[in-house]
Order: sequence, then structure tokens, then C-alpha cells
Amino acid sequence: MNELQKRIVAEGRVLPGDIIKVDGFMNHRVDVKLMRILAEEFKAHYAGREITKIMTVEASGIPLATIAADVFDVPLVFAKKAKSDNIEGGLIRSEIFSYTYKKKVDLIVSAEWLSPDDKVLIVDDFMANGEAMRGLVDIISQVGAQLVGVAIAIEKGFQGGGDRLRAQGIDVYSLAVIEHAEPGNIVFRE
Amino acid sequence: MNELQKRIVAEGRVLPGDIIKVDGFMNHRVDVKLMRILAEEFKAHYAGREITKIMTVEASGIPLATIAADVFDVPLVFAKKAKSDNIEGGLIRSEIFSYTYKKKVDLIVSAEWLSPDDKVLIVDDFMANGEAMRGLVDIISQVGAQLVGVAIAIEKGFQGGGDRLRAQGIDVYSLAVIEHAEPGNIVFRE
Repeated sequence: MNELQKRIVAEGRVLPGDIIKVDGFMNHRVDVKLMRILAEEFKAHYAGREITKIMTVEASGIPLATIAADVFDVPLVFAKKAKSDNIEGGLIRSEIFSYTYKKKVDLIVSAEWLSPDDKVLIVDDFMANGEAMRGLVDIISQVGAQLVGVAIAIEKGFQGGGDRLRAQGIDVYSLAVIEHAEPGNIVFRE
Repeated sequence: MNELQKRIVAEGRVLPGDIIKVDGFMNHRVDVKLMRILAEEFKAHYAGREITKIMTVEASGIPLATIAADVFDVPLVFAKKAKSDNIEGGLIRSEIFSYTYKKKVDLIVSAEWLSPDDKVLIVDDFMANGEAMRGLVDIISQVGAQLVGVAIAIEKGFQGGGDRLRAQGIDVYSLAVIEHAEPGNIVFRE
């Protein structure tokens, strides 16, 4: 088991509805030292690939993506979830279904901050159905930028989002792919 | 002028409604190197004070707060804006008026991740009316933790939020206090 998998086993809690709660180190209280260890693993995996930007979506993926941007020494761009009063021009949008909010939301990125020359690594804390990731991939494709890969801390393998992206030929790298989770028994993909 | 003030003058844009747009380096595309310079300035200002936790509120303050947690070598806790389906117990709440959403929202922090022993530095990218900061100060006070200070990148001095907190004896440290802003003319407090 790697560092993240050990922490999930030691501190994660499995709640009804396939929720794996890791808010003591990942997405409420954040262990920034652990984020650096994870970002260094991303760096090792994508070694030799040119990367000009880290992208994520607000809010819980931002700490890991910030440290990843620090480690890769490139800027971070985080997509926003559209608010009703956001009617500015120059925005790139992708509609996704948010399982958190149980409705459709638009991911938006200002066209100013993503260019066709960019080589983008997407980073997020969690992937389940992969809707947010699908939206970011769509935005990168609309701009004509190059997608280098999708780097995830925790993937809920049993929900299929990561495998759908892999089937499209995307280099999805997840540090902990959970295949099965019940209280006291979390099984990772080999 | 310090590093941040130079960047605001060079790249910031003043929009109608007292909006100072710095989304090219602060809160959409993020210059993580700049975040580290700002966090080091916070570290210098609060030198000698014991700090056990950095706190912020989702979403745009998270990159700066993450780097601050890295520089201070402590965990980050970010408050969430309450969603309707969030009915868990063990939550500390503070109601604020959000000028972004133009309605009341609850800031929430899980009681698990903040203790009476904590010595907390609040960090955020922006302060205007100071409602979000008032909410975080209230949460820290409800827990009985100690507030060390409020460290802000950009304070809109003309909106009074920072000065209201200073009047309560809080050590508010802002790297750029904007007293007046119109296109082509941004005036900082001395």
C-alpha cells in the first residue's frame, strides 16, 4: 500500500451511499505535507511529459492542485461552477451533472487563461462518475489545448468514471483506486 | 509598492461595481510562486506567534491558504458554504451575508477539525465587507480556539470590513489595502 492508501485505511470512514469520508486529511482539514507526497507521485508518473498548466475544478480539489502546480512549477487554473449572475463573455463552458448538487451545472473557464498551446494536466482529489473530469476534458478540447493526463488522489473504481476516460485513451493516474468499500473493509485495485 | 501591489497595478482591472479583477494571478489562473511570496510575508508579520492551523473559506482563498499552510507547516481547514442537503451533526455554523450570492449563507466547519487548543490564522485572497471573515472569527470563538490574526492579500479598504475587525482588536494584516480604484488609477493605503 502506498502512503495515501494507508491513510485511507487508517482514517477514512465508509458511510451509506458509497461515501468514503477522508475529510480529516484531504478535503476539509487538509494535510498539506501529504498533498506534496501525492503531487510528487504525479510528477514521477508524468515525468518527461511537457506540462504548462495544472487544471482542477472548485472547491475540494484546489489544495492538491495548488501543491501540484507548485511541484510542476506551472500556474494553476481552476474551473468555476456557474452562478446565475455570471453573464460575462469570453467564457468556455461545459455542462455536467453534479451528483453532489443533484442537478446540471456548468463548469466555466475564462478563455483568457487557457490557450491552444497549453499542455494540461488535470488534478483532482476524487473521481467517482467522472462527470467533473469529463467537463474539464471537454473544455480543454474546445480550446484546442493538449490534455496530458488526469491525475487523481482517490478514484471510486466501482463507479466507472476513471475507466470510461481510460477507454478514450486518456492517461488517468489514480493513487488509490477503491474497488469495494464497506465499514472496516476497503479494497484497492492492484 | 510591494510585489502584490505591483501586480495589481500591472495586471488588475477595475470594473463597474467596485470590482477589482485579478483573476490572471490570484483567483482563477493562480500564480503559485506569487502565493508563496505573499505567504512568506504573512510568516514575517506573525513571526513569534504560535500558529497551529490556517483557516479559510471555499473557494477562491484556498490556493493562498494552502501555500500559507505549507509555509507555516500546519494543516489547513477550509470552511464550506452550507448546502441544503447538509444535515450532518457535529457542525459549527455561522450565518453571513454573501455579497457574491446576494443572500445569507451558512459557513460550516466540522467540530472534529477545530479544537479549543488551536491557535488559528485566517487567510483569504480578498476582504471587502468582511462578512466571510466575521463568520470565521465567530466559528473560532464558538469553539473557544484562539484567533491569532487575519491575513489578507487584497483588502478593499473603502468597504470597511478590515477596519471593523481592527476596531475589535484583531491583528488584520493585508498586503494591499485599496483605498480608491478606477480604471487606470488604483490608490493603496500607505
